[in-house]
Amino acid sequence: MPPIPGVTLHVALARYKNWDRADLTYAELAEGTSVAGVFTQSACASSEVELGREQVKQGRARALIVNAGNSNAFTGYRGREAVDQITAQVADHLGCGTDQVFVSSTGVIGVPLPKDKARAGVAAALVADPCGWEDAARAIGTTDTFAKGARTSAMLGDTRVELVGIIKGSGMIAPDMATMLGYIFTDAAIEPGLLQELLTQANRQTFSCITVDGDTSTSDTVLAFATGAAGNAPLASLDDPGSDAFAAALTDLCRQLAQLVVRDGEGATKFITIRVSGAVSDESAHRIALSVANSPLVKTAIAGEDANWGRVVMAVGKAGEPADRDKLSIAFGGIWTAKNGLPVEGYDEAPVAAHLKGSEIDIAVELGLGEGHATVWTCDLTHGYISINADYRS
Amino acid sequence: MPPIPGVTLHVALARYKNWDRADLTYAELAEGTSVAGVFTQSACASSEVELGREQVKQGRARALIVNAGNSNAFTGYRGREAVDQITAQVADHLGCGTDQVFVSSTGVIGVPLPKDKARAGVAAALVADPCGWEDAARAIGTTDTFAKGARTSAMLGDTRVELVGIIKGSGMIAPDMATMLGYIFTDAAIEPGLLQELLTQANRQTFSCITVDGDTSTSDTVLAFATGAAGNAPLASLDDPGSDAFAAALTDLCRQLAQLVVRDGEGATKFITIRVSGAVSDESAHRIALSVANSPLVKTAIAGEDANWGRVVMAVGKAGEPADRDKLSIAFGGIWTAKNGLPVEGYDEAPVAAHLKGSEIDIAVELGLGEGHATVWTCDLTHGYISINADYRS
Repeated sequence: MPPIPGVTLHVALARYKNWDRADLTYAELAEGTSVAGVFTQSACASSEVELGREQVKQGRARALIVNAGNSNAFTGYRGREAVDQITAQVADHLGCGTDQVFVSSTGVIGVPLPKDKARAGVAAALVADPCGWEDAARAIGTTDTFAKGARTSAMLGDTRVELVGIIKGSGMIAPDMATMLGYIFTDAAIEPGLLQELLTQANRQTFSCITVDGDTSTSDTVLAFATGAAGNAPLASLDDPGSDAFAAALTDLCRQLAQLVVRDGEGATKFITIRVSGAVSDESAHRIALSVANSPLVKTAIAGEDANWGRVVMAVGKAGEPADRDKLSIAFGGIWTAKNGLPVEGYDEAPVAAHLKGSEIDIAVELGLGEGHATVWTCDLTHGYISINADYRS
Repeated sequence: MPPIPGVTLHVALARYKNWDRADLTYAELAEGTSVAGVFTQSACASSEVELGREQVKQGRARALIVNAGNSNAFTGYRGREAVDQITAQVADHLGCGTDQVFVSSTGVIGVPLPKDKARAGVAAALVADPCGWEDAARAIGTTDTFAKGARTSAMLGDTRVELVGIIKGSGMIAPDMATMLGYIFTDAAIEPGLLQELLTQANRQTFSCITVDGDTSTSDTVLAFATGAAGNAPLASLDDPGSDAFAAALTDLCRQLAQLVVRDGEGATKFITIRVSGAVSDESAHRIALSVANSPLVKTAIAGEDANWGRVVMAVGKAGEPADRDKLSIAFGGIWTAKNGLPVEGYDEAPVAAHLKGSEIDIAVELGLGEGHATVWTCDLTHGYISINADYRS
């Protein structure tokens, strides 16, 4: 992944847990960097999320700090004090306002982020040698099994801009680890308002379309930073030439990152794409697709390589959305096993069975009611999930 | 469990699956028996459910037929033909209308109920010797690990009435087995309208308060039959003397039956009671309690005997209901581990750990916002669930 002009990465050891790996990441951003963000909708969000929701409104960022190993969620005023200490320390170093220093934390819930460790870690990061994307992607992770990053680019007129993202997962990947954090960096020049609009739109088609276990974190955050170093004519509205290209590239990058989270879902052995069509609206299709994706019985059926379309019917039926049993059709790997409310007699089971033995599973649901459609991505539910989340104490 | 005057039970072997056990149950009901029912809210309900919803409107029943091993769901017009054949066959035998013959089926989805097996099974059941509750409870089961029944009684003035119920589970207990069916019998004299009102009310506090895996069946059905043989002054309205006593007994019976389903939840090792208080309304409390009860991370934490209240916070936060992180308190086994948004420092872990080692787990959530409260019951999520639902093919 290429460097992004205007972004300098550093990592340090804050030792938030008893481990020997970098767990504090610092991204220094060029003056004038635009920022946009989307955050968890949890009613019990962390101090970091509450602060970030406020900070993105002014649209500019100079720094990002990510703490791994402690989510600082549900820690009340003491958690907020730790965040305020970090923003003050970094703002002082850079000579900027504290509202331009973004902070995320991920890990155990309910333990206030230790201020002494944070202070020493930030101090070390501020003077550390720059590092590359892989080091940063690794440092923001908790029990992720691999470092996750993606890149893409777009032509804005004659100017090529780069987009790079790093992300950690995976839904709720391990005991007390409960956060999807994603960071996108680009050298494009783009006003914060438009960046927010495009990120919100991309999020709807990407991060909002993945689920590992249906459990929404208290700390989920995706931030996009645009340094402007590429020197393109700044994008300020959807009508500016290049906005479409940038929007497409941003959505592509978000989709890559979102899918990486699912691929690293806890205990996952299969990557499942669920396409719903023929719903009364796109929103209805999305809710039906999520009902299928979150059904433990559908997910265990896929783990068992069983084309159990009856469980898909069940999940469609319980979604609380319009559906007509006698118009419903279901396919696995492109082969219809049920059509218009009836099993397809004598359908060829061999290619369906072969499809289910693979690691990329495709489920299609056609409702026959309207034009609404949606796609979501999930993973199977296996003994691995239980082992990660139940077999040992946190 | 005592016999209920006016109810005669019979079982027969229809061999809906390749097994050697009774799988067709026939309950003959005295003329004039009142009936009430509550059914799945699935948009993909079975023919049996669709028919039952219509039949209860006229309020009288002479017979109940339950088929085990084939749910007859998602089988289109062929499924409906099988049901019509059964109602005609039984109505002909009893000399009653087909609308007084209730039918339920449970088992594999998507295979039309074989009409020849149904015809022979019903014919055998109609002439079989009467049997007891345990035989009937066993015959309606699929992969339930034990026969489930409960009883209670009520004094209506000077008349003692008996209530007996049988039920099968357990959420989605095994591959393709996907139904909770419950049947309640009483010798009380009670008009169908009032019986429906009381059953609906009891359902809201009992069957609607249990969850095993959040997967709602296409065939869930609870029917209540009142033969009137006890000879009490018939109950017709909530104001009649005895209505309160009957309502309390009915709710008590439903709660016993509902809890039996959870105790036999697939792979369950712990029975979990979740009490939510301080919500803005009872409905809000109910939705928050279900969000906690359906969270895979909460359920695996309990399986791991881990007082992981951070996961409870997460589940409260994602419920989509009003919650204030800084007013939220959580207790395990009656001991507060977090109060008003902060972990309770130095709380005594020993009794909490001991509580979690037991098989009856109690989680309390106090929101500090209002007077709304609710209780739901669930079980833990274990390797047993995965083994039942993924490790072998259906």
